[in-house]
Amino acid sequence: MNPLPDIHAVEIAAARIAPWIRRTEILRSASLDALTGCSLVFKCENFQRVGAFKFRGACNAVFSLDDAQAARGIVTQSSGNHGAAVARAAQLRGVPAYVVVPNDIAATKREAAVRYGAHVIDCEPTMAARSAGMAATLAQTGAAPVHPFDDARVIAGQGTATLELFEQTSGALDIVMAPVSGGGLLSGTAIATYGRDRRVAVWGAEPAAAADAQASLAQGRRITDWPSATICDGLRATLGEIPFDILSRHCAGIATATEDQIIAAMRLMFERLKIVVEPSAAVTLAVILAHPELFEGKRIGVIVSGGNLDLDRLPWQ
Amino acid sequence: MNPLPDIHAVEIAAARIAPWIRRTEILRSASLDALTGCSLVFKCENFQRVGAFKFRGACNAVFSLDDAQAARGIVTQSSGNHGAAVARAAQLRGVPAYVVVPNDIAATKREAAVRYGAHVIDCEPTMAARSAGMAATLAQTGAAPVHPFDDARVIAGQGTATLELFEQTSGALDIVMAPVSGGGLLSGTAIATYGRDRRVAVWGAEPAAAADAQASLAQGRRITDWPSATICDGLRATLGEIPFDILSRHCAGIATATEDQIIAAMRLMFERLKIVVEPSAAVTLAVILAHPELFEGKRIGVIVSGGNLDLDRLPWQ
Repeated sequence: MNPLPDIHAVEIAAARIAPWIRRTEILRSASLDALTGCSLVFKCENFQRVGAFKFRGACNAVFSLDDAQAARGIVTQSSGNHGAAVARAAQLRGVPAYVVVPNDIAATKREAAVRYGAHVIDCEPTMAARSAGMAATLAQTGAAPVHPFDDARVIAGQGTATLELFEQTSGALDIVMAPVSGGGLLSGTAIATYGRDRRVAVWGAEPAAAADAQASLAQGRRITDWPSATICDGLRATLGEIPFDILSRHCAGIATATEDQIIAAMRLMFERLKIVVEPSAAVTLAVILAHPELFEGKRIGVIVSGGNLDLDRLPWQ
Repeated sequence: MNPLPDIHAVEIAAARIAPWIRRTEILRSASLDALTGCSLVFKCENFQRVGAFKFRGACNAVFSLDDAQAARGIVTQSSGNHGAAVARAAQLRGVPAYVVVPNDIAATKREAAVRYGAHVIDCEPTMAARSAGMAATLAQTGAAPVHPFDDARVIAGQGTATLELFEQTSGALDIVMAPVSGGGLLSGTAIATYGRDRRVAVWGAEPAAAADAQASLAQGRRITDWPSATICDGLRATLGEIPFDILSRHCAGIATATEDQIIAAMRLMFERLKIVVEPSAAVTLAVILAHPELFEGKRIGVIVSGGNLDLDRLPWQ
């Protein structure tokens, strides 16, 4: 087994993807600071290309392939931002992308992959059908698979947002917080933070309705049969193996928020920060508001994971 | 009559308000550039304190009063962002604000002025009642009036956004564009742009349903009896006297967009820029999309005027 990615992998990723990614802005809000009793810095990955942090990891994976391998293309399965991110990264490298997509996802998400030039392979919305679709595409094309989170290259790429956050805040943080689902973002955040300053704690934020990562870390084993029924469509996966290993070492804790708290926090981010975020990106602020005993008085860097959502169906309406 | 404000007034304003305002971010979007055929730089005054550029002009007016005058307070009439901006600026200076508000405005807007500590004076929703409310408050308090746009201090303050835009873009612009209503923002933009680089053209963007400024400049006289029925609640005033004088000299033109075009542009800004903007702030992009013959191929700095709106009633729903 390969060693776990570390800060050096994140630094190499940062250099590799620098020509392609956007160095995203940070935003602060006096009114959210007053409301939370914290000093919050929001790292706006909703402004990232493709609208989510996923582009960082996808870029690192796609651009770390050698030319011969890349020429055969990239294959992934994703019903969301990762599929679009891989498609866009492959397009930038000038190689084919194959995205296996269950046929029950929102048309807008399928269209995003198509817009970025991917070959979309439709399948039934079951894990078995998705795996079969992946296997068939691999066999036909010899394309390189890029898993959305259980992949050291992807994790290292996601960690690059935290490197920027440390530069942009001169490291004046007590906590860095990110949402957790499969754990690619949170584990990348953890290795980057640990590498930069061990005194800074990394916290994960998770919907209470999909809190498998919290349970997994508490019990010291991955719990993969957790039924997830959350509005956060980006947070329905269960924790991956590599993320579990990393988070077992470098994560201070995972805290949860209810669906109502997440929706309220999402609306607050629209109102006070004037930014468009998807529900998955609001779980962090929801957790901060729900757990003042953990976070009050702290300087917290918050990774805002993405801003892709259906504007015709905002969850508070 | 006082001379018209010029670039020096804007520079003095910038120094005066620097401790209080936020230096707002600029954002770009590859997909909006592709869609418009332009190179667009969005100056995000929706991120400004109080959620709109109005805070710049209000701050300049409030902090330019001498102590004795300021101590008697500030009075203004406004159903929108200007009232909240004056309230907040007065609160920061530690002096009273009196905001005359028609009793038919949205509760959220009235609440904003109250939240910032203003004395809100309710009146009937007529111009006569508003003027009477202003006069009575002036007589009772001796407070200093601050007009939302027909005030050289306010205009100079609004121009400071453009000074920042020139710094943030190294002046690499062909056009600077802002919405126009009473004309405080556009005339401030015009004097700042003219002072920085006379080769850069200033364009105004106006709803076709409230195009009094376009007609006024075309006819060389202020047209103040224009019926305005636009979704852009910040763009229903008619052009002020001082703005008219400035724009007659320094404005390349005013172009319009329909209500449907404004709503579509607003949605595009949510989707592609991932920012929350009010309808009035989307008229610029709507105009750029509606008039490729005027704008295609140009490098355009776009002043995004504000982000205060009712999130329960988005106009495309």
